[in-house]
Amino acid sequence: MRAALKKPTGKNAPPEAESRIDCPAGFAAGGAACGIKPTGAADLALIVADQPASAAALFTRNLVRAAPIDISAQHIRSSKGAIRAVMISSGCANAATGPEGVRRAQRTVDALAKELKCDAREVLINSTGVIGEHLPDDKIVAAIPRLVSKISTDGLSDAMAAIMTTDTKPKMSQARHKHAGRTLHVAGIAKGSGMIHPNMATMIAVLLTDAQVNPDALDGVLRRATQKSFHRITVDGDTSTNDSVFALASGAAGEFPLEMVEKALTDVSRELALKIVRDGEGAKKLIHVQVREARTQDEALQVAKTIASSLLVRTAVAGGDPNWGRIIAAAGRSGVNIDPNRITVAANGVPLFANGRPTDTPLPAQQTAFQSDTVVLDIGLGQGSASDEYFTCDLTEGYVRINSHYRT
Amino acid sequence: MRAALKKPTGKNAPPEAESRIDCPAGFAAGGAACGIKPTGAADLALIVADQPASAAALFTRNLVRAAPIDISAQHIRSSKGAIRAVMISSGCANAATGPEGVRRAQRTVDALAKELKCDAREVLINSTGVIGEHLPDDKIVAAIPRLVSKISTDGLSDAMAAIMTTDTKPKMSQARHKHAGRTLHVAGIAKGSGMIHPNMATMIAVLLTDAQVNPDALDGVLRRATQKSFHRITVDGDTSTNDSVFALASGAAGEFPLEMVEKALTDVSRELALKIVRDGEGAKKLIHVQVREARTQDEALQVAKTIASSLLVRTAVAGGDPNWGRIIAAAGRSGVNIDPNRITVAANGVPLFANGRPTDTPLPAQQTAFQSDTVVLDIGLGQGSASDEYFTCDLTEGYVRINSHYRT
Repeated sequence: MRAALKKPTGKNAPPEAESRIDCPAGFAAGGAACGIKPTGAADLALIVADQPASAAALFTRNLVRAAPIDISAQHIRSSKGAIRAVMISSGCANAATGPEGVRRAQRTVDALAKELKCDAREVLINSTGVIGEHLPDDKIVAAIPRLVSKISTDGLSDAMAAIMTTDTKPKMSQARHKHAGRTLHVAGIAKGSGMIHPNMATMIAVLLTDAQVNPDALDGVLRRATQKSFHRITVDGDTSTNDSVFALASGAAGEFPLEMVEKALTDVSRELALKIVRDGEGAKKLIHVQVREARTQDEALQVAKTIASSLLVRTAVAGGDPNWGRIIAAAGRSGVNIDPNRITVAANGVPLFANGRPTDTPLPAQQTAFQSDTVVLDIGLGQGSASDEYFTCDLTEGYVRINSHYRT
Repeated sequence: MRAALKKPTGKNAPPEAESRIDCPAGFAAGGAACGIKPTGAADLALIVADQPASAAALFTRNLVRAAPIDISAQHIRSSKGAIRAVMISSGCANAATGPEGVRRAQRTVDALAKELKCDAREVLINSTGVIGEHLPDDKIVAAIPRLVSKISTDGLSDAMAAIMTTDTKPKMSQARHKHAGRTLHVAGIAKGSGMIHPNMATMIAVLLTDAQVNPDALDGVLRRATQKSFHRITVDGDTSTNDSVFALASGAAGEFPLEMVEKALTDVSRELALKIVRDGEGAKKLIHVQVREARTQDEALQVAKTIASSLLVRTAVAGGDPNWGRIIAAAGRSGVNIDPNRITVAANGVPLFANGRPTDTPLPAQQTAFQSDTVVLDIGLGQGSASDEYFTCDLTEGYVRINSHYRT
């Protein structure tokens, strides 16, 4: 069965955010409750390709990484990027669990490979949840036959529900592009509600497409798409032990221009990334930091990242306080050789600072800009023509509350 | 008048924390309310040396720095480190105020120099308070004659009170060492209640000694003392537009071994630094991160700083949650090539993690360690013999509350 084209969209249409999304052609997915989460909620997600699909993956750079990450990184290499299935469990991260953690993860891989009648190296896995506890592999192994029997082409939303932890909102996105009478379909799911919180270790995204792309090309596309999405967001500056982004291409819809695949994958990744930030722990507002007029893109990025990571900027936005002093002070400590007399700062189009001093914009107008659901901070450095951006959320008392009492 | 030796202490005695401290010989100090703070609280501090004193200073590395910092940095150079007075106002940072800010700051310098009948280059100044507002220089100039007439050798506590902003506790420290029948005296005052908050721009410390030290040697001593104190603390990772540490040596008590001066200055700086962290915005606990068994001191410092800067570690301590997973995850992303299987983690002596997995310490014992007023996190890397440390405070809802509503 091929995914129905319920909403065919134009070539440059933005990704769709729907309540349910279909699998791209060549994939089936589903979710089940296997008993890891004490609430009885869904906690085991499975995505299966009809035939070995091209695969690429990016993993956390944290040196303390979980057992399933080690196994998946090895399988991506040893299978030469030909993958049949991705299985993700939630409720237990299987991180900091030593050799026993690897043994238990491997047991679940072997059970799934047996059920799918494929090579164990064709399976990618990950886990998300509490660090330092052993994976209840018996529960996963017992649930696999039932889960495999129920996967379907419209089960991607169920897979997404099964990887949620502290997420309060679903995170799905898809894009379709027409080309030469055929339709390219990219669909993605993600979880994450802190860029990372090692205890609920953390950001995971799975991107699927029916385009035919070889593993090397897919790896390049995924890296570039991630640069413009998941690598441009921060909630609390931490990177987790289990962070990963998987991309699978079934080839069922044939070949498309690589630029088209890249655009669709980037759009979907970006929408998922913004959903993660908006659902950041305790977050009420999205902060979009745009830095322009930099000498180089690296410098623009460095300034944008420093501002987006500033607790003082983020608390000011939480309080609706047009505190531009914190923005220029963050720029000043970014390590980039900025010139304070050339900086301009505006929020949602309202000018706050220019020519080395505050503008005469009345305070009520400044405050309105900071009270919006989305606050776009525009910083001009007056030194060149390069630009970059970063996304974050406001830092509220809710964030501290959630993270102070997570285990109690 | 020479400072009375109320509490002579041994050679290795820790610095004294008293409710009032005396000026070291050769200095007088005082504070006054000149009308910058709307509450009518003291807001102008003055320290005067009887004769030109050796001086050294360290300033914020933020490229957006306040007018008084530019002037003081220039005076330290042009006076070749011979300084008569330090004047600090609170309530207005005189930062991001353009050329007008420099003119106003210079007016206050000229008025003080005239009153003291010294060269303007022999005056150091700083301001702390709100960014982007113009310094009320008329008020300062009008108050100078009165302030100069009332300074005394026991006025250092009054000077300290006049530089407080969001500080909730006084920050003074002194140390005395006997040598060859004479007594070396070092006294210091500081303000700061966030490593920095650009709006209340921020950490300022003044260190005085009666030892005879030439400016170059004093500069070296100050740099090394600061490395072990003010450069080992973080509250929120931001550096302000007005941060500075001043050191003045009158020479009135004669020469002492430089190591003795350095030890006393370091002890006093360290006590002041810890007082700043303990008085961090919203803070209830001091966190002392010790990293041992590193290959190099730089690596130990990098790991310690990353852990101390982690919002997740700091919120866990706020909640009394022995969440070692966040500690090792922070170590794993520090950029240092650690080995997760060699790491040990303990809190207040209670082992939490070793041999790549959690210890079997019962949870109540772990929790007790995290509920203490001071939480010492001891991290062994198992890779060498170098060590370093960092201090921070817990991150509470109070921090967010203070910083969300600072101007509203």
